[in-house]
Amino acid sequence: MTYFEGVGKIQFEGSESNNPLAYKYYNPDEIVLGKRMEDYLRFSVAYWHTLVADGSDPFGVATMQRPWNGYTGMDLAKARVEAAFELIEKLGLKYFAFHDRDIAPEGDTLTETNRNLDVIVSMIKDYMKTSSVKLLWNTANMFTNPRFVHGAATSPNADVFAYAAGQVKKSLEIGKELGSENHVFWGGREGYETLLNTDMGLELDNLARFYHMAIAYAKEIGYTGQFLIEPKPKEPTKHQYDYDAASAIAFLYKYDLIHHFKLNIEANHATLAGHTFEHELRVCRHYGVLGSVDANQGDPLLGWDTDEFPTDLYNTTLAMYEIIQNGGLHSGGLNFDSKTRRASFDAIDLFYAHIAGIDSFAKGFKVAAKLIEDGVLEDFVANRYSSYKSGIGADIVAGKTDLKALAEYATEHEITNQSGRQEMLKSIFNQYLTSV
Amino acid sequence: MTYFEGVGKIQFEGSESNNPLAYKYYNPDEIVLGKRMEDYLRFSVAYWHTLVADGSDPFGVATMQRPWNGYTGMDLAKARVEAAFELIEKLGLKYFAFHDRDIAPEGDTLTETNRNLDVIVSMIKDYMKTSSVKLLWNTANMFTNPRFVHGAATSPNADVFAYAAGQVKKSLEIGKELGSENHVFWGGREGYETLLNTDMGLELDNLARFYHMAIAYAKEIGYTGQFLIEPKPKEPTKHQYDYDAASAIAFLYKYDLIHHFKLNIEANHATLAGHTFEHELRVCRHYGVLGSVDANQGDPLLGWDTDEFPTDLYNTTLAMYEIIQNGGLHSGGLNFDSKTRRASFDAIDLFYAHIAGIDSFAKGFKVAAKLIEDGVLEDFVANRYSSYKSGIGADIVAGKTDLKALAEYATEHEITNQSGRQEMLKSIFNQYLTSV
Amino acid sequence: MTYFEGVGKIQFEGSESNNPLAYKYYNPDEIVLGKRMEDYLRFSVAYWHTLVADGSDPFGVATMQRPWNGYTGMDLAKARVEAAFELIEKLGLKYFAFHDRDIAPEGDTLTETNRNLDVIVSMIKDYMKTSSVKLLWNTANMFTNPRFVHGAATSPNADVFAYAAGQVKKSLEIGKELGSENHVFWGGREGYETLLNTDMGLELDNLARFYHMAIAYAKEIGYTGQFLIEPKPKEPTKHQYDYDAASAIAFLYKYDLIHHFKLNIEANHATLAGHTFEHELRVCRHYGVLGSVDANQGDPLLGWDTDEFPTDLYNTTLAMYEIIQNGGLHSGGLNFDSKTRRASFDAIDLFYAHIAGIDSFAKGFKVAAKLIEDGVLEDFVANRYSSYKSGIGADIVAGKTDLKALAEYATEHEITNQSGRQEMLKSIFNQYLTSV
Amino acid sequence: MTYFEGVGKIQFEGSESNNPLAYKYYNPDEIVLGKRMEDYLRFSVAYWHTLVADGSDPFGVATMQRPWNGYTGMDLAKARVEAAFELIEKLGLKYFAFHDRDIAPEGDTLTETNRNLDVIVSMIKDYMKTSSVKLLWNTANMFTNPRFVHGAATSPNADVFAYAAGQVKKSLEIGKELGSENHVFWGGREGYETLLNTDMGLELDNLARFYHMAIAYAKEIGYTGQFLIEPKPKEPTKHQYDYDAASAIAFLYKYDLIHHFKLNIEANHATLAGHTFEHELRVCRHYGVLGSVDANQGDPLLGWDTDEFPTDLYNTTLAMYEIIQNGGLHSGGLNFDSKTRRASFDAIDLFYAHIAGIDSFAKGFKVAAKLIEDGVLEDFVANRYSSYKSGIGADIVAGKTDLKALAEYATEHEITNQSGRQEMLKSIFNQYLTSV
Repeated sequence: MTYFEGVGKIQFEGSESNNPLAYKYYNPDEIVLGKRMEDYLRFSVAYWHTLVADGSDPFGVATMQRPWNGYTGMDLAKARVEAAFELIEKLGLKYFAFHDRDIAPEGDTLTETNRNLDVIVSMIKDYMKTSSVKLLWNTANMFTNPRFVHGAATSPNADVFAYAAGQVKKSLEIGKELGSENHVFWGGREGYETLLNTDMGLELDNLARFYHMAIAYAKEIGYTGQFLIEPKPKEPTKHQYDYDAASAIAFLYKYDLIHHFKLNIEANHATLAGHTFEHELRVCRHYGVLGSVDANQGDPLLGWDTDEFPTDLYNTTLAMYEIIQNGGLHSGGLNFDSKTRRASFDAIDLFYAHIAGIDSFAKGFKVAAKLIEDGVLEDFVANRYSSYKSGIGADIVAGKTDLKALAEYATEHEITNQSGRQEMLKSIFNQYLTSV
Repeated sequence: MTYFEGVGKIQFEGSESNNPLAYKYYNPDEIVLGKRMEDYLRFSVAYWHTLVADGSDPFGVATMQRPWNGYTGMDLAKARVEAAFELIEKLGLKYFAFHDRDIAPEGDTLTETNRNLDVIVSMIKDYMKTSSVKLLWNTANMFTNPRFVHGAATSPNADVFAYAAGQVKKSLEIGKELGSENHVFWGGREGYETLLNTDMGLELDNLARFYHMAIAYAKEIGYTGQFLIEPKPKEPTKHQYDYDAASAIAFLYKYDLIHHFKLNIEANHATLAGHTFEHELRVCRHYGVLGSVDANQGDPLLGWDTDEFPTDLYNTTLAMYEIIQNGGLHSGGLNFDSKTRRASFDAIDLFYAHIAGIDSFAKGFKVAAKLIEDGVLEDFVANRYSSYKSGIGADIVAGKTDLKALAEYATEHEITNQSGRQEMLKSIFNQYLTSV
Repeated sequence: MTYFEGVGKIQFEGSESNNPLAYKYYNPDEIVLGKRMEDYLRFSVAYWHTLVADGSDPFGVATMQRPWNGYTGMDLAKARVEAAFELIEKLGLKYFAFHDRDIAPEGDTLTETNRNLDVIVSMIKDYMKTSSVKLLWNTANMFTNPRFVHGAATSPNADVFAYAAGQVKKSLEIGKELGSENHVFWGGREGYETLLNTDMGLELDNLARFYHMAIAYAKEIGYTGQFLIEPKPKEPTKHQYDYDAASAIAFLYKYDLIHHFKLNIEANHATLAGHTFEHELRVCRHYGVLGSVDANQGDPLLGWDTDEFPTDLYNTTLAMYEIIQNGGLHSGGLNFDSKTRRASFDAIDLFYAHIAGIDSFAKGFKVAAKLIEDGVLEDFVANRYSSYKSGIGADIVAGKTDLKALAEYATEHEITNQSGRQEMLKSIFNQYLTSV
Repeated sequence: MTYFEGVGKIQFEGSESNNPLAYKYYNPDEIVLGKRMEDYLRFSVAYWHTLVADGSDPFGVATMQRPWNGYTGMDLAKARVEAAFELIEKLGLKYFAFHDRDIAPEGDTLTETNRNLDVIVSMIKDYMKTSSVKLLWNTANMFTNPRFVHGAATSPNADVFAYAAGQVKKSLEIGKELGSENHVFWGGREGYETLLNTDMGLELDNLARFYHMAIAYAKEIGYTGQFLIEPKPKEPTKHQYDYDAASAIAFLYKYDLIHHFKLNIEANHATLAGHTFEHELRVCRHYGVLGSVDANQGDPLLGWDTDEFPTDLYNTTLAMYEIIQNGGLHSGGLNFDSKTRRASFDAIDLFYAHIAGIDSFAKGFKVAAKLIEDGVLEDFVANRYSSYKSGIGADIVAGKTDLKALAEYATEHEITNQSGRQEMLKSIFNQYLTSV
């Protein structure tokens, strides 16, 4: 069966094409920085937004017109698998990602729920065998069901902790079964609504206990995917514990988890936390925990997670700049945790939207690569910090000096600073952006 | 000489008084939770805002009418010391805090600058001998002078690093000389304006080197005050490295500094970072790093550090709730990092403003103490998390279970959650606020 | 049938009561400023949040445990009417408010939908006859159904405009039938997602045409309730046309509607627009358009409409201060456009939450009334502006001078300003807040 | 004398040039949309940021290294005039703008201040005669001096109102003398800090009185420049009365000033008010009040007016799109109300920064022009709203129908909506941005 009638495989046609169903910048086989674009840009389709989301928002019901709208239950789940592979292949992509509850409906009991999962996982495994599509990551949805109203691993209710544990156990098994390259822990409702009723200490201790159990179980079953925490500041709880990269890192250190986890950085979560996307990526690089990326964008004037498809070329270029400097994302990828707007309700909008995001990252990648090849920013930075390469600066870096020696030095040296040249650098950046 | 003519010592007159120059709630000798209020509420006057600030803002020049306005240079510095002690004593307080540059002007050379400092430090020491006023903390101003345009310990210019080192050396010596109970490191311009020209990794490494040198020097000279980092997110640089408590903590862990520092939490910095004041205090408690407090408040609708005197009783009550749970602030205090509004330009407004802040914290303290004495929130919380006291919950906390056992448990148990009762708790909170 | 078993009529028990199901401050018969509290505080229950909302949010499904959860369709609609009157009467309130779709389900056709409405309206009318409960306002829900995906009166689709017209026609008839004291127009999806696809000019022209037709029809059928526009800035569309009071007023002026409408000001909408609640009320007073109030509160650190029950006494006091100065709300009221938190899912939380809101406004009202009786702020303000009562100031106000005369005056007079005394005023405000 | 040694006239060298002191996109003589670029892009240098600002911020003193740093008083004022004309001419621009206090220092009396102004105005007039540089607008600085601590026309002190009147009288005379094409009223401190001490009604009435006097005086002296109000939301007062375009428009209507004023829209003020730059421009177009533009940009993650040089090509393109649709800015222009970053302290950074801004607008202009020439967005929009061209839609627009007829129509017609295609449009926009 065909779900997206009239749409063929999306082809690269170049920047002059006015075919809305063609790539203008994404050319999988083009060699950039010595690798095929496709190997660098490990794009992934987000199952929840693309196959499951219906366009409802807090003020209105479903709008999305989808070829699978007639189905229900397990039939719907199966139709979505078929449609997913058709869509991923037509987009020419290699990865997808899902929550357990995206792919199969909950049953009346955990046992039945897991049986539903088994059926669909088996079906997905079959599809994966006959395609080149792989699973970037899977995760457990521990926030939609009312049992998680107060959180999962941080619930005040131990029975909920137990249920969540059961769910993650199954998800790790699914990850192993499908060769998932990563396992993501997004906080869901791990946070609090008001401190008036919250024991933050116990909740965080329990969260760490939960993670240690997950590590142990992965080891036990031989699942070797990378564990990822996905920071997010403000939704759905008033305060989410994994507010941003720094708060996740502080937690990982305290609980001796820093060597077991990397982070999955989402652009829109970064800006909701008051940071730029590139800032969060740079922080992760510095702490050695850049794992994967949720590729989307927010609206800087709106205060919630809008999960728009990424189209701002400044953001995609600066993100790719960090990713290149990181030597790529390794087992991670660029997962489109992005949804078509509620008013873009046609099935064909799914293609327009993915093309928009893919081309924006491809263009950003090429611009970033050229900036790096030309050493534009790196040379400027190297020169700016050159005082640490010799003399007193080299002593500072080498740990060969102390406050007394530096104080003495300071009384004897005049200080001359250099301009930061922000405006000049931004001009050059614009030149690269529009001419690469 | 008298600077504040016509103002006597501010007395406690109780909540019915309509004397604007009297305390309505702050009664130093009143016993609350078994201690004198004064011993719990270690209020401190901020030298910079109260003795130095002139009311200028980015759109206008000085407005403040101060009895010392006629003086300049070292005469001004001396007049301010005299006025400071008069004001602190008339307010009946016991602490103050300053940056090096608040108390003495810079000279043409670092040597001359330090000579200026020596004169004033000696004068302050004399005043301290004849009063009960002590130094809560001192710090080095490494942001006002243009040499710090790109930061101090994180400057791309090694000579600036050296200068900053010399300045902190002197500040530690001053701290020792005056018995300063803490030494604060506020990031000043330790951050970046744009990643385009920034080597974040080197900057953070250097910042850590700087702190280790400071620790070594304090040990060398026998200075034993508590070291404090003060997080702030967005001013003056676009991104300050010590964005919030969590980012400071992540840094302290990575660089093996976590046992040498605590945090100085400012209310307005918390809200600029997207957190409530009480959240930052709770986080510090959890990580064991609650050191001291900069008592002020921001305007939730404005995006910069307004440093208003704290008057919101919700904030002061919730802050004191955390502080009481922390067993007090130990060597820390409640420093009024607060300035009278530019339009409150009379010298007498300094008294009105401090009275407003002091009474707001005193009232908040009494409300928080009563909440704790009555067990209002603690009992609710204890009951809410009681499932971790026995059965599967106790096993989780004790580390006696794993994903497999929990999964099995989950298949056999129905989940029943309890309401979080946020609205009811807020009603009760209001009752306490208005009736204690 | 009884829906709220075990809950009797909520009584006033005073501020010392620790009965969570009693009023601490709201005493309907107490005389304040010469009127019964009840006559001043025209509280209203919001049908949608209290009878309809199920606790779902963008990350999770329904949590609310309601006595009517078993019903569907028209049976559910009827059960809600019964429960609504029981709840309103047990709370001792006199008003409620609804959208057309809150009270009756849509049918397959507009005709059927209107038939459903007729049944429920008739039932409500019967209930109103035997109770003292009245309808504060009704409105048309023109945002939930997918037909309104691009707006209603501002839809690019003329058929949608026509449908919306039909819906408002019916709502006006219902308003007449039930004696609704006001008719509210909340913008719903009247706004845009992106200017790239939007003809703002046509959309605003059409919106004005829509309002003029509504005015004409109300006149035709003899409906005399006050028309109200409810500003809101950012949800659900990226830009809502009625962003705040000022933007609604500009629109009303341009389209000659200023004499036909007043505004319904919501606290949380105000803060989302960057204004305080009291600011929006003051602006409305100034422009003569203060109509009614949606009583709730937002979280100053969250960027969406959280619609919390109002518990911040600063907000309620300052709001009541404006309302008293306005001579009350006249045909308007204080409608609790507030929802219990998703985690406060028990039916009894509906009572706790309304009590929290009602008591917060009652307390705020008493504090504001006392401030006004004592002339605390008014006398300060009168004195502050006294220069406009005589001399050059009186000439300015009387229009008896011009730039030339003023320039001449200015060359001859020294200027002396007075302190704004913000901190002193806030201290006094706190005294009133905690002692009235 | 030469102030900017080693900098010649900035030339257009095209997008491939890597000369940082050349235009890459701005080619004054290039014909776009049938006009020379220069005639469309009426760029203006802002005297205050470029000639006066010293790099001080709330946390630090001056950093800017300027060739005129050695001068003081009237010598400094004269040096700045010389430098200004050199800079404007080297940039190849035609306009500048100033506040009265930018060009000449205040004297001890208003009379002396005006004498200082006369000297400099005369000098500027001479320079203008021998160059092609014109005055885009002038304005009165009524916020820096402490006399304006509580505002100018909205001061509670009538003497301050009088002083402000004198200052505007002089500014209008200067405008006439120098042929200023517009006169701007930026609110300065026209707003309030707290409603507790504020009579908003009197303040707004007085502001309107002030404007009417200015209109009368301009008429009296024959000054015919366009009057402009510049909205800004949050600085320096907590609430500025001209918060955004809509609030200025509401005010203008109420006080019968709508036909006398247009608006000067600043990008950074727009975003601080929660709007996009293009939104404010569109609103102005709709209300017929688009007057001029302050060309800069803010940082979407910072909460104050950063006044950065505009470099975001999305913003410049969307702004130019609105300006083209407006038929240009007429007597208005694109004034760089932008300052080099504090860390970009070299004089040469002034050139880099202006080049960055000029090129960004030139590029944006070309992209917008091509979008319009190709009818990309206009055709999409025309088709999207085509239902209003015939049938019921045409009746609605023509005012030929009413609620009853529309209700009847609605019962008989099925509704079919079309996708908004936001993602597709953004893709096309990116193609234009990077290929024009």
